Amino acid sequence: MEIIINYISILGSFALAISGAITAMDKRFDPFGVFIIAFVTAVGGGTLRDMLINDRSVFWITQTSYIHFIIAGTICAIIFKSKLDHITKPLFIFDAIGLGLYTITGVQIGLEYGLAAVNCVILGTITGAFGGVLRDILVNEVPIIFKREVYATISILGAILYLTLNKLHFINPILQIVPVLFIIAMRLVVIRYNISLPSLYADERKKKGTTRE
Amino acid sequence: MEIIINYISILGSFALAISGAITAMDKRFDPFGVFIIAFVTAVGGGTLRDMLINDRSVFWITQTSYIHFIIAGTICAIIFKSKLDHITKPLFIFDAIGLGLYTITGVQIGLEYGLAAVNCVILGTITGAFGGVLRDILVNEVPIIFKREVYATISILGAILYLTLNKLHFINPILQIVPVLFIIAMRLVVIRYNISLPSLYADERKKKGTTRE
Amino acid sequence: MEIIINYISILGSFALAISGAITAMDKRFDPFGVFIIAFVTAVGGGTLRDMLINDRSVFWITQTSYIHFIIAGTICAIIFKSKLDHITKPLFIFDAIGLGLYTITGVQIGLEYGLAAVNCVILGTITGAFGGVLRDILVNEVPIIFKREVYATISILGAILYLTLNKLHFINPILQIVPVLFIIAMRLVVIRYNISLPSLYADERKKKGTTRE
Repeated sequence: MEIIINYISILGSFALAISGAITAMDKRFDPFGVFIIAFVTAVGGGTLRDMLINDRSVFWITQTSYIHFIIAGTICAIIFKSKLDHITKPLFIFDAIGLGLYTITGVQIGLEYGLAAVNCVILGTITGAFGGVLRDILVNEVPIIFKREVYATISILGAILYLTLNKLHFINPILQIVPVLFIIAMRLVVIRYNISLPSLYADERKKKGTTRE
Repeated sequence: MEIIINYISILGSFALAISGAITAMDKRFDPFGVFIIAFVTAVGGGTLRDMLINDRSVFWITQTSYIHFIIAGTICAIIFKSKLDHITKPLFIFDAIGLGLYTITGVQIGLEYGLAAVNCVILGTITGAFGGVLRDILVNEVPIIFKREVYATISILGAILYLTLNKLHFINPILQIVPVLFIIAMRLVVIRYNISLPSLYADERKKKGTTRE
Repeated sequence: MEIIINYISILGSFALAISGAITAMDKRFDPFGVFIIAFVTAVGGGTLRDMLINDRSVFWITQTSYIHFIIAGTICAIIFKSKLDHITKPLFIFDAIGLGLYTITGVQIGLEYGLAAVNCVILGTITGAFGGVLRDILVNEVPIIFKREVYATISILGAILYLTLNKLHFINPILQIVPVLFIIAMRLVVIRYNISLPSLYADERKKKGTTRE
């Protein structure tokens, strides 16, 4: 179990490092700035999760393999981006993969520590989405998670799907793969068709022009 | 003692959730974005406090009742706000209540862990004010705490008042209620009369127009 | 060893408090706002380091002497700044001193906990640079560390220099003083001659005007 979580989590860190590096390159950061944003995006969610769960060591402090994958992800992003400039899709694809993989590891770790279902869902969403929130704060943007892109909602739904499958006694690999693919697919559908949850004041958006979009 | 702290703390989380939800609705976030800001505002200060005190579990990880109160606060805010739009007062009232209740729980927990008085004051202020700081960072504003509104100052004074009453052997309910009411009343007075501490460069404010207000 | 780390670390907190206070005064914060930014800048990096290392208490929670030095640093900055207004150099000098001293304590603590070299470097850079990142986030700026000023790079090089000297069996005071002076000197050279690492898209900067500089 622990091994599978690690495997998924390393893949997630690789995908999120790419997403972070692309964002930082768009902001014209220097190479080390690009690596730092990639690092923060990749480990931010899991780090907060591990700090929230008392008596759990922060994952990348004890396992340096993550750092190698993040460096690899950053280098891939740099090579990749120079060939595919002006395409913003890759950011969303890797972000979606990272969200899916990390959300599920967060839920699994919550279950391992015997937390209540609602806390497992919150830990999953934190693990999946907080790295991206940190990335956006560091580049001084309103976090993408709040921009009516159904971001956290999908992570929450994916976490609930995992808990449901788990309750119904599904086992691996279905138990893990289905919620991960659900989250990735949902994110891509949402971006493709530009779906958003209604703002609670949709009718007023034209009146007040002060909102930063 | 522990029970009373919990009771106050839950009320504080309810008030701060409302304050967070109102801010997020003003920024036109989607419903889940509103909940996340409410959640972060409500638990941010206490979470940092619990992470700073080694060997203390994060309060909402072990007690899910907080999450229910935060959800209730968010729903109240949504219903409440739609009736009282364009009124910014509620934000300040609930923020003041949360600041008062949380500051005192922070000081009490510091005393429980045998920390020095200055650290109890800092923990109290972190517990009371950090959730609001996170709220403002997440919506990409300069935190309200820094906007010459005597915010942290009042929290610090309230914490010192609690420590003084404690030293003078006052007991509950006076020991708790007086500093909480002091903080709430001071905040409302400050907002009502628009009082602010002088900037250290008040005379220069017109010359340099670059400061973001 | 522990005593020397504390000594260096207290000097670092003093220097970073001055750097934080100057930034906050430039932003016209009220006196308590100035102290809070000074505090966060001074303890932010070490606090994150201590929270990342499981079973290590946060340094300023157990040792209140830091808080006294931060208060002293804030008062010095207020007196100092009023005499030397319009001079931005002091900010960089104290920031450089803090970066140097804190980076090395971070590396030393990583070694003490038997972490891998790469993690010692990361902990050193976090200890040295994260306080400044928090300072910039709180005043709603893109962190200086990302502004092509070779900031993190120098911290990383200083950390590697320390690990190399340590491997070559150099002992104190050379082991500590050389990397600290290296970091401070490099930062001042970089600022003096306005050196920056190339952006990964330097040629494109004129085309896209959306980047906030």
